[in-house]
Amino acid sequence: MDRYEVLELGPLEAWDALTTPDGRSGKGFVDKMIGTQYIGLSANAVEPGAESPFWHSHSHLEEIYLFLDGEGQMALDDDVVDVRPGTVVRVGQDVLRIIRCSPDSERPMRYVCIRAGNGELASLPRDATRDGERPRPW
Amino acid sequence: MDRYEVLELGPLEAWDALTTPDGRSGKGFVDKMIGTQYIGLSANAVEPGAESPFWHSHSHLEEIYLFLDGEGQMALDDDVVDVRPGTVVRVGQDVLRIIRCSPDSERPMRYVCIRAGNGELASLPRDATRDGERPRPW
Repeated sequence: MDRYEVLELGPLEAWDALTTPDGRSGKGFVDKMIGTQYIGLSANAVEPGAESPFWHSHSHLEEIYLFLDGEGQMALDDDVVDVRPGTVVRVGQDVLRIIRCSPDSERPMRYVCIRAGNGELASLPRDATRDGERPRPW
Repeated sequence: MDRYEVLELGPLEAWDALTTPDGRSGKGFVDKMIGTQYIGLSANAVEPGAESPFWHSHSHLEEIYLFLDGEGQMALDDDVVDVRPGTVVRVGQDVLRIIRCSPDSERPMRYVCIRAGNGELASLPRDATRDGERPRPW
């Protein structure tokens, strides 16, 4: 790991074209593009009417979502929160969450998800649980 | 700490009016506005021609800067990097950094700074070192 690293994600509009190694579009893991020590960071884009492919939770990590563009909803267990540019959502352990961009949003939703846990990222257990069966709340 | 928390920072233009308890303007610490466990996060705004009040480094924390608006430069020890919307800079330990918004930037610079270390934020030592004497590289 260098003393510092610089990465150009491009402006928000360019985030729609980010692609993960497993083919998910509109998602780029900064921590995989460059090495990071403690901080996980993804840049995300969701088209109007689209949503996360599954609910998920973390047993060890804390996550903070910062919404930057578009409008939509984030569901947290049994709650649904409206999100817009400047909304910050901190999510503790074992809370199921899923996100959608409203069908009538004038712009795609772009947001970052920050994650960290008790130590270096590389030393933390894989702690994500997916729930692909739970109904969507919208 | 609740299972989750929601905070409205407002759109980027509203970040100029954020104020810290010690009176610094254009800076809001999300981790102080809401409780966080591992993740430190600040929202920042810098007017064209303005700059950080001092160089600083961290002996334990990693920081990631994500620039969202405006254009400027970030100095890292003896290097100067141009930054624009979508530029990500990861900074390791003991690297001095300082930021300015270019005098000819058409918009204020708005960015977030993410920080994390080896454990819960509240358990980490105060590890920032300020250098108010080091000359500015611009």
